[in-house]
Amino acid sequence: MKFFAEINVLPQKEILDPQGKAVKLGLHNLGMDAIDNVRIGKRITLEVEADSQEAAEAQVKTACEKLLANLIMESFDFVVKPL
Amino acid sequence: MKFFAEINVLPQKEILDPQGKAVKLGLHNLGMDAIDNVRIGKRITLEVEADSQEAAEAQVKTACEKLLANLIMESFDFVVKPL
Repeated sequence: MKFFAEINVLPQKEILDPQGKAVKLGLHNLGMDAIDNVRIGKRITLEVEADSQEAAEAQVKTACEKLLANLIMESFDFVVKPL
Repeated sequence: MKFFAEINVLPQKEILDPQGKAVKLGLHNLGMDAIDNVRIGKRITLEVEADSQEAAEAQVKTACEKLLANLIMESFDFVVKPL
């Protein structure tokens, strides 16, 4: 069975996010002063072949831990759906 | 009122995604051959001060169109919730 996974990787709350700060400044320079606390991470979508929902979720979790997220600075969450 | 927005910016389907291809290769090199069709975009969260849900959504849409997404190569979607 094929599954579709949507993964979010975001900088941890305690960690400074210079890219988010820069984007906030850019938005303020465009006159959008009402926007605050911008944080920027990664959005990853992928397909995975697995026997069950649980097996697919286990694979996605391993992929996040081994490659997609740097757990020292980032946290991740994901949703896996059958395709 | 304060609202919290979660924004996804992903490369359009027709567009090559070299970063996604590289990550797929990396996952395969780690033995995770069951993963395919990796696409990598941005996940942005922000807070916005607005009078209503509609006003907040309008601001987030403008921010996406003006700065956060390059509409020639990327598409975006977002969810806005009251804080």
